[in-house]
Formats: sequence, structure tokens, C-alpha cells
Amino acid sequence: MKNYIKHHEWQIIEEGFDPHLHRVSESLFSIGNGRMGQRANFEEEYSGEMHQGSYVAGVYYPDKTRVGWWKNGYPEYFAKVLNAPNWIGIRVQINGQSLDLAKCKVENFRRVLDMKQGVLHRTFVATLPDGKRVAVDASRFCSMHNGEIGAIRYAITPLNFSAAATLVLDVDADVVNKDSNYDEKFWNEVSQQADSSLVMVTAETRKTLFHVTTGMTWQLEQGGKKMDVSPKVISRNKYAGHELAVSLRENEPLVIVKYAAVLSSENHPKATLEQAARQQLEGARAQGFDNLLKAHAAVWAHKWEECDITIDGDVAAQQGIRFNIFQLMQTYTGDDERLNIGPKGFTGEKYGGSTYWDTEAYCLPFYLGTSDPKVARNLLVYRYKHLQRAIENAGKLGFTNGAALYPMVTMNGEECHNEWEITFEEIHRNGAIAYAIFDYIRYTGDEAYLAEYGLEVLIGISRFWAQRVNWSADRKKFVMLGVTGPNEYENNVNNNWYTNTIAVWTLGYTLYAIDYVKRNHGGNFNLIKTKVHLQDDELKQWDRIASNMYFPEDKQRGVFLQQDGFLDKELLTVNDLKREDRPLNQKWSWDRILRSCFIKQADVLQGLYFFEENFDRDTIKRNFDFYEPMTVHESSLSPCVHVILASVLGYKEKAYEMYLRTARLDLDDYNNDTEDGCHITSMAGTWMSLVKGFGGMRVRNGQLHFHPYLPDQWQSYSFRLEFRGRVVKVNVAKSGTRVVLESGQPLEVVLNGQSVPLAVASS
Amino acid sequence: MKNYIKHHEWQIIEEGFDPHLHRVSESLFSIGNGRMGQRANFEEEYSGEMHQGSYVAGVYYPDKTRVGWWKNGYPEYFAKVLNAPNWIGIRVQINGQSLDLAKCKVENFRRVLDMKQGVLHRTFVATLPDGKRVAVDASRFCSMHNGEIGAIRYAITPLNFSAAATLVLDVDADVVNKDSNYDEKFWNEVSQQADSSLVMVTAETRKTLFHVTTGMTWQLEQGGKKMDVSPKVISRNKYAGHELAVSLRENEPLVIVKYAAVLSSENHPKATLEQAARQQLEGARAQGFDNLLKAHAAVWAHKWEECDITIDGDVAAQQGIRFNIFQLMQTYTGDDERLNIGPKGFTGEKYGGSTYWDTEAYCLPFYLGTSDPKVARNLLVYRYKHLQRAIENAGKLGFTNGAALYPMVTMNGEECHNEWEITFEEIHRNGAIAYAIFDYIRYTGDEAYLAEYGLEVLIGISRFWAQRVNWSADRKKFVMLGVTGPNEYENNVNNNWYTNTIAVWTLGYTLYAIDYVKRNHGGNFNLIKTKVHLQDDELKQWDRIASNMYFPEDKQRGVFLQQDGFLDKELLTVNDLKREDRPLNQKWSWDRILRSCFIKQADVLQGLYFFEENFDRDTIKRNFDFYEPMTVHESSLSPCVHVILASVLGYKEKAYEMYLRTARLDLDDYNNDTEDGCHITSMAGTWMSLVKGFGGMRVRNGQLHFHPYLPDQWQSYSFRLEFRGRVVKVNVAKSGTRVVLESGQPLEVVLNGQSVPLAVASS
Repeated sequence: MKNYIKHHEWQIIEEGFDPHLHRVSESLFSIGNGRMGQRANFEEEYSGEMHQGSYVAGVYYPDKTRVGWWKNGYPEYFAKVLNAPNWIGIRVQINGQSLDLAKCKVENFRRVLDMKQGVLHRTFVATLPDGKRVAVDASRFCSMHNGEIGAIRYAITPLNFSAAATLVLDVDADVVNKDSNYDEKFWNEVSQQADSSLVMVTAETRKTLFHVTTGMTWQLEQGGKKMDVSPKVISRNKYAGHELAVSLRENEPLVIVKYAAVLSSENHPKATLEQAARQQLEGARAQGFDNLLKAHAAVWAHKWEECDITIDGDVAAQQGIRFNIFQLMQTYTGDDERLNIGPKGFTGEKYGGSTYWDTEAYCLPFYLGTSDPKVARNLLVYRYKHLQRAIENAGKLGFTNGAALYPMVTMNGEECHNEWEITFEEIHRNGAIAYAIFDYIRYTGDEAYLAEYGLEVLIGISRFWAQRVNWSADRKKFVMLGVTGPNEYENNVNNNWYTNTIAVWTLGYTLYAIDYVKRNHGGNFNLIKTKVHLQDDELKQWDRIASNMYFPEDKQRGVFLQQDGFLDKELLTVNDLKREDRPLNQKWSWDRILRSCFIKQADVLQGLYFFEENFDRDTIKRNFDFYEPMTVHESSLSPCVHVILASVLGYKEKAYEMYLRTARLDLDDYNNDTEDGCHITSMAGTWMSLVKGFGGMRVRNGQLHFHPYLPDQWQSYSFRLEFRGRVVKVNVAKSGTRVVLESGQPLEVVLNGQSVPLAVASS
Repeated sequence: MKNYIKHHEWQIIEEGFDPHLHRVSESLFSIGNGRMGQRANFEEEYSGEMHQGSYVAGVYYPDKTRVGWWKNGYPEYFAKVLNAPNWIGIRVQINGQSLDLAKCKVENFRRVLDMKQGVLHRTFVATLPDGKRVAVDASRFCSMHNGEIGAIRYAITPLNFSAAATLVLDVDADVVNKDSNYDEKFWNEVSQQADSSLVMVTAETRKTLFHVTTGMTWQLEQGGKKMDVSPKVISRNKYAGHELAVSLRENEPLVIVKYAAVLSSENHPKATLEQAARQQLEGARAQGFDNLLKAHAAVWAHKWEECDITIDGDVAAQQGIRFNIFQLMQTYTGDDERLNIGPKGFTGEKYGGSTYWDTEAYCLPFYLGTSDPKVARNLLVYRYKHLQRAIENAGKLGFTNGAALYPMVTMNGEECHNEWEITFEEIHRNGAIAYAIFDYIRYTGDEAYLAEYGLEVLIGISRFWAQRVNWSADRKKFVMLGVTGPNEYENNVNNNWYTNTIAVWTLGYTLYAIDYVKRNHGGNFNLIKTKVHLQDDELKQWDRIASNMYFPEDKQRGVFLQQDGFLDKELLTVNDLKREDRPLNQKWSWDRILRSCFIKQADVLQGLYFFEENFDRDTIKRNFDFYEPMTVHESSLSPCVHVILASVLGYKEKAYEMYLRTARLDLDDYNNDTEDGCHITSMAGTWMSLVKGFGGMRVRNGQLHFHPYLPDQWQSYSFRLEFRGRVVKVNVAKSGTRVVLESGQPLEVVLNGQSVPLAVASS
């Protein structure tokens, strides 16, 4: 855990340069725009410890899965998120000395992420080894208005000298992944273009053959006047740049504006990439930095209007929630249905793959509540388009007849994670994909989605569950053997209660959906029925399974059992652990973790959260009281579920403790791993914690319900919801709760059980 | 399954050259001498599909374990058996054409492994592309008399021409492992020596820094006369050879005798390796091929006298058992306690590591029965010397206080396998190491071994078991969670009956051993007690665990349950499987295998075999009848246990079916994988099948017991046993069983329950 980020309502602030915190800051101060993004690396050379990282959405490398003991059905490859060409470089040489903060005395260092406008600022004064002092003021953004454009304004002012200097402005595709085995590189050069106005490098990913063209152009200003300098072109394999000879004059800022274009073959034909990049660069230069920034900031202003959350009386909490919203919004904008929300977004390359069940279980509610419904719908359609791949994935494991198993991790629908205990066994993800359809329809009312896309997905998943269970002659029940639940600190267990629960729920919901589509969209139904060869016998079998499933429980304690045999464990609580044992995944062997009772993340409780309506409060309480004390929250996805259930149970202190853990997980580096990148998907859990936890928001029978309370530490808080064409604002203060309809047709909401009619106030 | 090997009592014979079978034959016809060995590669160039493989005992490469999702306690590396420098090369060029069987017409091809003498023969007639015909007659062996020497006699006779020819005789350290990721090579050159009489290459393994010097010298003979030819030295990195210009004369054999020396730094100081190799080469050349062969054959003659088994009336069975004995004897000679019995011996490099629990559970009884007791004792001392490493291995997993977990796979005592479900969980291996001590003492009577080495090992293992179990408050019993039993088609199960059984047995035997050493070797006991800080409390706890262990069982069926939850599976039998589904491990996904009831190898039955005395015949029968029909025998270690138990139960047909499966597993390529190498360790199971199965041999109370029967397909069979200074020969025929004492002091054996006094017949 760390505590060096200054608290501020709208900004993330680092003051003073501590090289030991640099990699953490590189993650925290990352910027992006849904299409591309990058860590907060320095523009100038930096020879200290760092993690250079730029990323382009959708671009990956299929690293062959190499294990000594191959088994049938193992995925072919592990999809690496690719470190992409770096376009930020502005290397400064003065008197043969490189401006390199690892080699200078650094003063007045300040790094600021302005979340309101989406701009990364940095200022510092550096003293070069020979005593020359320069002040630098840099700003950088990836345009939310034009996703292929980035811009940097880099002002350098000599404080105690005048001298000649050399600048190198470049693009560099000779990058390497942190997780590259054997230091393999994943890019080959395709071509370069360089003239006196710009340079461009087109590089191709190995195996996947994505093309990415990265180009840059620039303008110089000194003493407020445009300068013309003839650049010398520098070129080597996968690298091109301009070298500029300039004269620095004491106390006169030299301002470099660098414009970058990053275009990928995902969005352009390969043949026209360079031409399109040139147009983008010329267009950017013509507009200039200030105009580009204005257009970019306008997009952010609009986004914040839709989704801002305010918290009064607790700046740390305010900063935390905005940071989470900011990162989510710059990771996924929802206008490209081929994209998804990678676990590290554009802040790092760890893990790999772009899509986990995080998307459905955690991110979907956030985008539902804060964005146009098409954003959430695109997340669902993404999975619809992968249905055939999910059927193939199940086929590799021996499932037949259109059974679909969605991958644990994917880029393009194929499974690309490579632990059998996860890929074969952590199959509850399949249920989350079905649940997301239900959740989307519940929130938006868009039941027609079932006829259009939803039903086919549900049938594929239900077929999987029906084949995945087996009849236990011993128990005279259906059982589900060999699974890994959400709590990945257990592998290959039998009858994980959560998995059995979501499987049975899926079967029931699919039967409902079939009935609904048949009655309301008969034409679609017949098409689907023919397409997927749906048989009546299947439906009967699904019903039989749903009615005869085995669920492990401890009748004496009145709790559901996470899995068969759970009570054979030594039942300890987190309080029994020594401080130095945590986090367990860094301190204990896997052997010890597996055999312990300790829970990585909500498992039984995840089911109680999803299916809250099916359980009475006492049942939720007994299970929460049993499992919460064993939960170590070593997944970033865990605390939010606990906030929501604790709120239901009135455990306000527990809820607030868990809220801080999710809201400031990265800012305070709770798990000592922010240097690898931020935990993007779990940031949606922070939003849910506040809206569903403290705000008690639910949708029941097409109506918004609220059951809010105010944490003792706060004066008030407010959030907005996009809901069925309206914008509803909720303000919770000590004096009470105010729900206001900001736009859209009148509607009734339910506040603390009471119906409240809302209409837009006439002005 | 294949059927191309000709049946013969003493020879393995292949007639006619089928390139598709070449890799299988390369495995089957492998030769070795305990120090080194090699696959039956051709001496001349061969451009067809093949697997070049030479191996030097004890030489390995620690390939770093690379998995995307590292967890604490994972082993650092996977130990690869290294493909070592190749010394057999005799390349023949005639008229610019290479003698290469992939490019010639091949007639009269015959490959013979003479098991009696330990010599590989090959003869063929090849027609070169231009019509020239040559006859080749080649013989090769690795000397059992001098483990650092190999020799080849290679006679080439032109049948329809006379012409100039070029011969290249070489040593080649530029070899690559089949299982090399990224085609990495594991050898670097240290030095070369070459003069007109010999060449030598000294190569070093990467990381482990073993040095191996491989040298060769030669003699030529033509028309029965020695020839002097001045060689041209050829040299490149990691390679050296002699090029000889010769004249081939029609119908006159040109005989090349090539002598090789292979010396490793395991046996010589690095500084004197080359000098020692030169002496070996000069000595070999001075002795000549025939004398070397005579000395080599004499060792084999002596070995066969000790361990031959004869079977009358079934040549296939006779060939099979001799093949198994031959391979075992040339893999491990028992005179170097640092060595062990790798799963592929010198016949291939798959798997890796040299030591598995196969050694204790399968190989030990074979060497006990056929060799001087020091051979078996060396196998035990090997583990004693690794005790400290086993304690470190357990320490990495969080065990304390001297608890020892022996590795699943090792070269030097460190764990070097890299699947968590095996290394962390397949802990029954620890029990097998304890059991081997008991088994050795039971057979040899050398109870003093406990005081010398055994007790420390037993204490380390018992400490492991005591920490590995936990008290289940729910069952009010000790349980053992998260294990993999011998049946590796189940992972991470709770309460594997076999593991619980051998754990409890170990605790009891350790308590016995402590008591024995205390009473009989008080001095040793006090030393050990102090050394390992043995506490009385520990002993009480071991007793408590042994008395209160939980064992899963099905009371209704009267069988022990392989593990908790086994009855939840769909209980099928092998007869329910389609032919095309087998072998399951090649046809089914791992997911499907794990959830099925099918059993890879004896698991509950392994326990009934080890602890037969503790169970009545009906119990053994009920369990055999329940588990045997589910067993697919996809481990080569499985059939022998079934032969032995089937024999106990009088299931003669089943026993014979299983016997053939183990005896001819490689010769008939049952599992379609002999091309990777032979299943060396399971060959000991064939010996056990015959001696303990058909012969009913047991040792009880220090006495040899026999309860023999004759398979219907045989006329008679006989085997010899080394037993406490005696050689006992047993002959089982239709007319009855004859037990003869061939040497040693008189003793009483028990034949079919009747005591029979034996003495050496006076001549």
C-alpha cells in the first residue's frame, strides 16, 4: 500500500520525483481514447527503471502455448497484449548531455493527470551534469475526438544559459513486451516514409499480421514565434525520426508541438494506411494543438455530464471514484463492437487477452448506467459474434450439438488462456454471459434483443450446461464435477454452489426466452429453431436438470457450501492470518492456498448478489457472516460484491471499508501491483459499489428502485443514471435523498419502497 | 499396435526396411551400458525421418519453467535428458553419391538386436542412384566391461563395381533435443583435439556445465589386411572428423572398425578429461574389436546367468521377457549410487528427469530379485543423499521442521517437473520411498539399514504426512485434501484412499523403525534424534493420525473409494468405450478424462498390492471386480499390478492378457508411442508379473514363499532369484514346480504353503 498521490477532486497529482514510484505512476497517469493509449512514460530519454508501453486496441500476438505435458483440448496459444510503436519520443541533447531525469538533479517535479479534460501534464526543473538548468512543461493527450491522433506540447526553457541543442522527434516500432519469453520481438517493419515534414513507420505483427502505421510531424515555436528548422532524417529498422538543430536562449521557452497518428489495419485497408496516416498528420498540424485539445476536452465535458459522481466531505473518495470512471471511459468508448475491455486497458500488458467475464459481470452495469444503451448492447453483440467460436471451443473439449463454451480469455472468440484448471473448468463465465443478456434487458427493457441475438447465445450455453452435468446414481441428483468457481483459490472441485446455481438459472431463463420469442417474434423463432436444430427433447431435459440439481449446503449452519467437501477444511478467518502472510498469493505456495479455506473473491456471495431476489435476508446474512471473514479479496473484483451485500445487511462500516479498497485500489496500490498497470475492469465495481451499494439502486419490474444511505464519513454524494431515455440524478445527503429527472419523459421511481413520480422541472 | 518384429528367443529381428517403422525400431534396438547409450540410428547418413539420439548418464539441462501464470512453489526448471554428442557416424560417399538408405533401393535389410551378447547388427544391400550396389554388414555395442567405450565394425562390399570412395568418421556435438523450445541448443564447445590417429570434441552443457569428451579412432582392413590411410582432418564448431580416401574393390569387403570413448566430468576432473579419453581410445584400438566384444559379451553372459527367465511354448512371451530384462540391465547397472533409472533409459529423451517413483515401486523388486543386494541398496542410498533437498522442496511449499517431500521427477534431488497437480499433489510418491525401505529390508533382512540410512528418511517423510493432513471438525477424522493419486486421470481430489493408506502405513512403520533402532542401535538412535531434533510429541501425533485417519469407502458395495465423490461419476466400464476413443489420452480432452470414471493405472489396487497382507481375499476381489473394468492401463505401470492381483484371485485369463500387455508393450507398440523411446521402468513390472504374479513369489517372515501356476498358453517357465546369498531357481511346468538351490547356504522356502528345505545338490 502507498500513499503518495495528492488528494484532489479532479486531478491525480504526484509532487517530487521518486524513481522508485515511477512505474506505479506510469500506470496511474496513463492516457487513452478507446482506440489507443499509453503509460505515462517520459517523452525525453529516461535511463532509469521504467516500463515503456503503448497499446493499440485489438492488436495482439498469439504466443504459442508451450508446456511440457500437453493434453488434448489445451488452447493453441496465449494472446499477448502487444506493446506497440512508441510515438512520444522527444529526445533532448544539450552540450553532448542528454536530458535524462535519471542523470539530472530534478526539482519542482509535478505530474498531473487532469481527469476533467483528459490531459497529462508534467513540469520540472532539471540540472544537467554540467550545471545547466532547464525548465520543462509538457502536456499530452490521446484525442477522444479523433481516436487516431495524439498530441504533445513540450516547452523547454534554459534557466541559466544559452546554447545549441539537438532534438530528436521519432517513432519507434522496435519495442519489446515485458512478458516476452526469450526476448522475442513481435513486430516486423513493413515500410517507412520520411521527408522534411513527417516520418512514418508501418510495422506488422508477427503471426497475426496486423499492420499499424505510426507517424509524427511537429511544429516549433520560440519566443512566441513559429520557427522553421530543416530536419535531418534518421532511419533504421523499425525506427524513423527527425533530428533538429536548435539554439536555446536563456529564459526563452522553446515549444515543441508533436502530432502523432496511429492507424491500424483493423480500421483501414493495408494499402491505404500510409496515405490515411499522412492525411491525419497534416490535418492535425493544420488544426494545431489548441484546437485539437479543445475538441478533445469537449468530448470529456460531455462524458462527465453523463456519468460524474460527486462525493462531498471526502476528497480521497471523490478522487477515487472519478479516477475509476475516467479510466473506464478512456478504455472503452462503446462505438466499436469488435473491441472489449482488457483487464489492464491501455495501462500495461500483463495478463493478455482483452475479454474476461469481468466485462459481463462488472463492466456491463457501469456502461448501462452511464452511457447510451448501444454501448452495453455492443458488449453483448461482441459475444453473439463469437458464438460460433464458442461452439468450436466446446467442440474441442468433446461437447456436441451446438453446445457453446465461451472462452475464459479471448481476443477474437478463441480461448487463449492456458491453464486447464481455468480454461476447462472455470465455466461459470458461461453463465455470466447469459446473465448479462438478462441484466441488459432488465435495465433497458429491450426484450426484442432476445429475438435478434440473445436467444441463440442462451441456447448454446444451455446446451453446454446440459452436457456438462451428469446424473449421480448415488445422490439421485444431477451434479457438476470438476469445476473452478469464481474463487480461483480452489481448482477442480465438485458441485461449486455458484456454478450449479448459475447453470440452473441459465436453463430456466433460456426456457423463458424460448417461450417469449415464440410468442412475440414467431418468425424469428422459427428461423432460430431451424438454424440451431432445436429439439423439444432438449427443452424437457433442461427442465429436468433445473428441477433436479444438487446444491451442496450445510443444513446445520444454514449456509450454502462453496463446494463439496468444503467443511473438511480447517475453517479459519482472515484474522487468524499473520500480517506477513498476506497477500497469500505472494506469500504462500499454491499447494497451501488450495487446501486452505481462504477465498480469493466472492463465490457463494457472487451468487447471492446476482440472484438476490431469490433469497431472504436471513439467508444472505448467514452466508455473508460465514464467508466474508474467510475472504482475502486478492481479486480486485471481490470488494464491490461485498459492499453491495453489506449494504443490504446494514453493515455500514464493512461496506465503507470495502468501498475504499475498491475505489483507491490502484491510487493507493493496495495489492502492490499497480506498477504492472491499473485494474481497469474492477473499476466498474467501484461504480457499482456506490450506485448499487450505498445508493441501493435496483431495477425491478422495469422500475428504478433506490434504497440509499450515506456513509458516516461523507456529507453527501450524487450520481446520474441513463435509464430508458431519461437522465435521473440522485443526491443523497444528511438531510435526505433527492431524485431528480434531468431529461426525458416522466417516470416513476421507487425510493425506499415508496413510489415517486418524476418529471423534468419546467424552467 | 504393431506386429513387425520377428519372434525369436534371444533376438529382436526386423526384416526389410520400412521407413515408417524406423523411429520405432530406433527405440527398440537401442543399446547402452549404464553409463551411456543410444538409439539404433544408422552409422551412415540418413536423410529420412529419424530421431538421432545419444545419451550420457547423469547429464541434463535445467530448462527454465516458463508458464504465464506463475504461482509460488512452482519448480524453477524442468530437467531435460540431453541428447549428447553422436559418435557413430560413418558417412560413405561413392562417386559423389552418399550412401543414404532414404535415397537408395534397399534389399535384404535385416536389423538384429542380439540380447545374449548385447550387440546390434545390421545388414543390407543398397543400390545407389547410379546402379552401384553395395552390401553392408555392421555391428555395434556399448561395452558393459568398460562403460566409456563403444565400438563399431562396419563392412562395406561393392557388389558390381570398383571405385574410389570417401569415408568420413566423426564425432558431432552439434546436436539438438527433440523437445527443444525455439530450437535452442544445449551444448557449447570447450575444445577439440585432432591428429592423424584420432579426433576428440569436448563439449559443455549450458547452465549445468557438465563436460563430456567424445573421441574416436579407427582401423581399416581390406581383403583381410590392415590398411594405412592418411586421414584429412575436418573440423568445425562442435564437430571433428577424419576424411579417408579409399578404393573399393568389387566383392572385397572394406572393414571399418570405429572405436569411441565417451567420458564425462561426472567421473573425471575436467582438466584430465581429454587425456583420459585419449588413453581409452588408444587402449581400445590396441585391444581390437574382437577382444572388446569378448569382454563385453562375458559381462552379459554373467548377467543372464543371474537373471534369465525362460518360457517354453511361447516364443513371443520368451522374447518379451528377455527384452525387458535386457533393457533394464543395460540402463542401470547399480554400481554408481548417483545414477537412477530414467523412464526412457538411453532410448529417447521424452519426459525428462531420471528418477520417478517408478524406481521404488517397480524397479527395486526387480533388482532385489536379480542382482547383488548392493544394487538395490544403492537405489535407496540415492534417496538418502537427496534427503536435504527433499526437505528444501517441502520448505518451498510451506512445510517446516524437517518435513521431506521427495520430488516427482528429479536429476539431483530438486523437483524438476512443472505441473502443480503433479508436483504439489502427487505426494503418494513419498510413501513409495518409505515403502521401498521396508521392501528392501523384508527381502534382504538388512534391518541395520534403518540405523544407517533408513530412519532419517522415514522421519522426514512422516513429518511431511503429519503436516499434510488436517483435522476435519466435520468428520471428526484426519483428512488429506488436494492430492493426485497414482491414477493421474484425477487431479486435486480429497482423500485418495491409496494416499491416505500409504501415509498411515508410513507413520506406523516409522514408529516401528524408531523403536527398532532405539533398541538395537542405541548409539545411532541418539545421534539421529539429536540431528533431526526428534520430539516425543511428534511420535504421539503420528500415532494419533494413524489411528484416526479417514478412509473413503462404499459400504454398500464393500469397496474402498478411490477418493471422495467417486460415486458421483457416471460409472461405466471400458467395454462402454468406443474403439476409436482409445487411448483416451490421445482422443479425449483432459476435461472429459478428469470427469470420467476411467482409471489410468492401478490406484486403490496399487494399495491392495502393496499391503496385500492387510486385506482378506474377498476384499481384494470386490475391489478388483469394481475397479479393473474401469481401468484403461494408459500408464505402462498399470498391467503388472493387475497381473499380480488377478493371479491372487485365480483370474488366469485376465492375468495372461495383462501379462502380454506389459511384456510386449514396446515390441508390439501397444500405445503407439514406442517411437519416442521404450518404457524402461515399467519393464520391471513384467518381471514382477511373472515372478510375483504367475510365480506367486512373496517374502514373509524372512522366507521365500511361492504359489505358482502355469498359464495355459505355456509349457513351462523358470526364473532365478538372488536371495540372501543364495541363488534359487524355480521351474514351473505342467508336471509341477521344482525349486532348486543353485548356490549358497541351505534354506527353507514355502511352496504352496508347505515348507521345503533346500540345499545345493552335491555333484
